Amino acid sequence: MSYYGSIEAGGTKFVCAVADEELSIIERISIPTTLPEETLAQVFEFFDRYELKGLGVGSFGPIDVNEQSETYGYITSTPKNGWRNTDLLGLLKERYALPIAWTTDVNAAAYGEMHLGAGRNTQNCLYLTVGTGVGGGAVVQGSILHGFSHPEMGHISVTRHPEDSFESTCPYHDHCLEGLAAGPALEKRTGVKGQLLEADHIVWDVEAFYLAQALMNYTLILSPEKIILGGGVMKQTHLLEKIRQSLEEQLGGYVTLPDDYIVGCGLGDNSGTIGCLLLAKEGA
Amino acid sequence: MSYYGSIEAGGTKFVCAVADEELSIIERISIPTTLPEETLAQVFEFFDRYELKGLGVGSFGPIDVNEQSETYGYITSTPKNGWRNTDLLGLLKERYALPIAWTTDVNAAAYGEMHLGAGRNTQNCLYLTVGTGVGGGAVVQGSILHGFSHPEMGHISVTRHPEDSFESTCPYHDHCLEGLAAGPALEKRTGVKGQLLEADHIVWDVEAFYLAQALMNYTLILSPEKIILGGGVMKQTHLLEKIRQSLEEQLGGYVTLPDDYIVGCGLGDNSGTIGCLLLAKEGA
Repeated sequence: MSYYGSIEAGGTKFVCAVADEELSIIERISIPTTLPEETLAQVFEFFDRYELKGLGVGSFGPIDVNEQSETYGYITSTPKNGWRNTDLLGLLKERYALPIAWTTDVNAAAYGEMHLGAGRNTQNCLYLTVGTGVGGGAVVQGSILHGFSHPEMGHISVTRHPEDSFESTCPYHDHCLEGLAAGPALEKRTGVKGQLLEADHIVWDVEAFYLAQALMNYTLILSPEKIILGGGVMKQTHLLEKIRQSLEEQLGGYVTLPDDYIVGCGLGDNSGTIGCLLLAKEGA
Repeated sequence: MSYYGSIEAGGTKFVCAVADEELSIIERISIPTTLPEETLAQVFEFFDRYELKGLGVGSFGPIDVNEQSETYGYITSTPKNGWRNTDLLGLLKERYALPIAWTTDVNAAAYGEMHLGAGRNTQNCLYLTVGTGVGGGAVVQGSILHGFSHPEMGHISVTRHPEDSFESTCPYHDHCLEGLAAGPALEKRTGVKGQLLEADHIVWDVEAFYLAQALMNYTLILSPEKIILGGGVMKQTHLLEKIRQSLEEQLGGYVTLPDDYIVGCGLGDNSGTIGCLLLAKEGA
């Protein structure tokens, strides 16, 4: 039997999984992200028990995805204590003489959703997670979108909602999407954690306005066949319809969108893991 | 000898060209865009004299680029008199039993620049024209970016310059790039045609701010290896450096850009024609 491994390397936890040839998950473990040596010791312990044919890694970023670069495979300028300039891919390769696929967590999720989730039957789709931060990944003509680096879609600038003067939570930008619409911004605005806010709270209109504006710009630049929304904030399912309405308003009829354009995840919380497993299998 | 044909179908003129196997241009003609029948009669007259192996068309839009669609090859919702819902590709195919490549004018320009212009040695580049309108095209991993449709990058929303309250010239959007930064907006703001404005006029700071903001968003979403700027407004060569500076300011150090990231065209006014010829040759 052939096995494939997946690592969703997040800033809070590493979710590791092993699956069989059909990508059915056999075992899964969640390991706290502490320091690289400590976390990786547990990762190794988990995978050492399997004979893997390939491994796929979707990592928190920023990371270096440029294969020509000297720091390819590194987590680069993260503020996460101990992880800055960590050669994560190198450390994994040292341990396992395997083909290891390497991309961002959100790219892996986009890839998983395109193949086996809400983006089935498309070749171009975009995945956006709205949670502690906002991050996006895209698949273009069937391949993960990388350029000189990976996208950083959460930091695009957005125009202010006319009634919003909230101070951005982003240390880099006064009016980027993440700074105005990620979970911490919701909480700071209202004094209440997003998951505890009533569905009819006015803040959801502001939230939908910013997310829709970003989706409008993604649409006008990338023209994906489908946009898939995940992450903690999107557990507020009433938000989807608000975003769809605001998007139509902001587009002003300029573009006709495909049916069922803005949707939730088809793979629940497994988008990233499935994406990593697919990449692992393809690379093996 | 094998010949390839190119049509840059613009709202003002159709530029048609014929080139040899090396893509050296043998003959070129500019035909006014009047009504489809009239304009195409002249296009046919021009190409009828050659035995072509393939033809590449880069058209003004919006156009239908989805091969699965019933209206593939049409110019769709243009306000241009007589051209709305015109099956341009179909009319060309009726006349010439040839492989005919079909994309937008700006996609063709992006493709030409990537292969033989300022984007040589890249696989991912973005071309933006700033003139009567603002339009963008992109090449991703060597292929022209199409999704459910072609990009409409000129209509992304931008945040206002703090000192700008100018009314957008776009009938669809109050604060899109085209409405605030295309040639007509420059002229309406100042009462003077852009090409006559002094290089030290304050409006260029505003112009650079909007263009840089758009380039920031393109960068964060697409991560191109290079951004190439063309069109009438970019003949103001002092603008390039202003845009570079404003882009760095607005990014706030969040992303490190490649060297020589923002550049002018490498093919002068020929980006589109060369792109169409390349597409014609590849499709033949």
